[in-house]
Amino acid sequence: MNTEGLLAARMVRLKSSAIRELLKHSKMEGVISLAGGIPSSALFDFEGLREATQLAITEQAENAFQYGLTEGSYTLRERIAELCHERGVVASPDDIVVTAGSQQALDLVMRAVVNPDDVFVVERPTYLAALQTLELAEAKLLSVGSDGDGMIVDELAELLKTQKIKGVYLVPTFGNPSGVTLSRARREQLVKLASQHEFLIVEDDPYGELRFTDERQPTLFELSKSLFGHADNIIYTSTFSKILAPGLRLGWVIMPDWLLHKVAIIKQAADLHASALSQTIAEYYLGLGRLPKQIETIRAAYKKKCQIMAELLERELGDVLTFEYPKGGMFLWARFREPRNCAEWMKKTMEQGVVFVPGEFFYADNPDHSTFRLSFATATEEQMHEAVARLKRAL
Amino acid sequence: MNTEGLLAARMVRLKSSAIRELLKHSKMEGVISLAGGIPSSALFDFEGLREATQLAITEQAENAFQYGLTEGSYTLRERIAELCHERGVVASPDDIVVTAGSQQALDLVMRAVVNPDDVFVVERPTYLAALQTLELAEAKLLSVGSDGDGMIVDELAELLKTQKIKGVYLVPTFGNPSGVTLSRARREQLVKLASQHEFLIVEDDPYGELRFTDERQPTLFELSKSLFGHADNIIYTSTFSKILAPGLRLGWVIMPDWLLHKVAIIKQAADLHASALSQTIAEYYLGLGRLPKQIETIRAAYKKKCQIMAELLERELGDVLTFEYPKGGMFLWARFREPRNCAEWMKKTMEQGVVFVPGEFFYADNPDHSTFRLSFATATEEQMHEAVARLKRAL
Repeated sequence: MNTEGLLAARMVRLKSSAIRELLKHSKMEGVISLAGGIPSSALFDFEGLREATQLAITEQAENAFQYGLTEGSYTLRERIAELCHERGVVASPDDIVVTAGSQQALDLVMRAVVNPDDVFVVERPTYLAALQTLELAEAKLLSVGSDGDGMIVDELAELLKTQKIKGVYLVPTFGNPSGVTLSRARREQLVKLASQHEFLIVEDDPYGELRFTDERQPTLFELSKSLFGHADNIIYTSTFSKILAPGLRLGWVIMPDWLLHKVAIIKQAADLHASALSQTIAEYYLGLGRLPKQIETIRAAYKKKCQIMAELLERELGDVLTFEYPKGGMFLWARFREPRNCAEWMKKTMEQGVVFVPGEFFYADNPDHSTFRLSFATATEEQMHEAVARLKRAL
Repeated sequence: MNTEGLLAARMVRLKSSAIRELLKHSKMEGVISLAGGIPSSALFDFEGLREATQLAITEQAENAFQYGLTEGSYTLRERIAELCHERGVVASPDDIVVTAGSQQALDLVMRAVVNPDDVFVVERPTYLAALQTLELAEAKLLSVGSDGDGMIVDELAELLKTQKIKGVYLVPTFGNPSGVTLSRARREQLVKLASQHEFLIVEDDPYGELRFTDERQPTLFELSKSLFGHADNIIYTSTFSKILAPGLRLGWVIMPDWLLHKVAIIKQAADLHASALSQTIAEYYLGLGRLPKQIETIRAAYKKKCQIMAELLERELGDVLTFEYPKGGMFLWARFREPRNCAEWMKKTMEQGVVFVPGEFFYADNPDHSTFRLSFATATEEQMHEAVARLKRAL
């Protein structure tokens, strides 16, 4: 049977995920992977997760296994509102939709706001799977550069002189893949531009809690409220994936009124609601009061891992590589001092038994092939030593 | 701030879910709801679910709480393939994507195949939330009627003389909301038309296992394979929601090669993967061998409930209503003999303390306002007696 013409045109254009193909090799025995974007399961609070699960299936079994509200359990949204409040994100449970990870929040929001060829601006580099949601929504993508202080907002201001945009997507704190954090001055500048030019900011904040210092930048949501008394154009999303357990597939999105009901309609069509079992477990877990300590544990462990990785890279490859020291998160973004195609180079590093993600995948346009992303979240200290030695041998 | 113009055009067009507003009243104290599309939690196999959950969080805790494969756990796909095999749906685990309920399968598939204004044909009446996925994908909807033998395929054949279509969506077995089942002859006719005119069939089969008799119709997937040796244009989706627990948000979709990889890319952008915890629980639950008995339990209970409801309606309201006796599923679809607007009528039934879903919501076009849907899955026998008495009083 001839099945040509049965796919939607946008799917024919959609590029296959080269990164998926590439990373098939990362599962091979003996290969050390610094490629994954996954948190360390060695740090999961299994004891707390088991206790919360027990409570969910004994105390709330009917709620945990039955259909629930599209927007998410109200109790959970109350607890999320409390959690957000501590981050300076002051919202009511009614402003929140519980999603299947923040990934789903991005997809739902892009579906609700992007018309084909609407312009969305992203950082160079930016989170790969956000690019996918924007491509699926058929946005026209433009990009602005970033440096050690995050997105270069001056470039955006310049662009806005000639270009009307629908929105900006960014990970302002401990970015993926860049590892960098948007400075306070640039945060204010960005929020002011958004208000002046009436565009959306999609503030993706999966890593905000994973800080290695006491320094804490206000969220863009918070800044907008304090500068203008509202956050009508700010969409704030976060997740339990990096602080609790990604397997639950639980995140959330805080939205202004004009958007929330529309996103709820899409959510209903998309999957009715997030796993009721996962939601009930998260409710109980938050009720147990274990999260603050768990976040401390993850912070301390990642901070140490990041330090080891950075020191090894500096010592062994500092003459050929340059990078910013992350102040939090899971990623370190490196650039060769001399031009080098890192996707090509990875063929050699794979022979040596180490993989990473070539930086080119994180660009909407104008990829810098000399870059690559290393995750320091999952490798052990021993593996990091070996991995850096292998990287060096592959040069 | 002026937020007009920030929504995508399709969202402005998308009608708000009137049914959601309407059903807010169904939660009021004393109101008997025959409106819900939910299974009876009184029938859930809590013992088995608890045992499977225990196993998941002790034996496979890391898999249950960590990120997983976009297509779903391979072990679960193997078990789903076995389950499908018993239904006559012979597929390999590699043909399956695990989804967040069959609702997500519909959304992902529509996103992958529908260009704006592509024609999709649905039954009159059809499943409400499938209409939502088609509207979000900006399909042009056409409809054909149905009767006691399901979709009137002759009408479709007539339509195909002048109209090129992308696909047909239907619930061929124990339909929602119609309760009816597509006859064998019409199944063959439909599959042949799809092959001849090269259109897709989206076969939505959430209720197929819930049969009240020994009669079993072959799936369209199965028929296509036996008639043509392939199912290249058949998309088969089903779910654990009606046979195990909807709160897990677990369904699956079986697709031909040309489509599966594309749907997997969308799934990745949509939510990365279905809840790993839910998947691990389902794996263990299926491994425990309890599902066949559980399905028997549900069948027997729903059969009895359906019989009571049908007899009550026949006896008390048979002079004003007509309906087909369902041979399975969860719904009974009634029509007033004389024209009556059931949405208007529901204002009166609500005063009496009983709600249902007015039939008009289940139509892509030309709604029959004299129809309504009753669920017999959740009400007790006593509630059904009272509900029918209240319906009668509201006349």
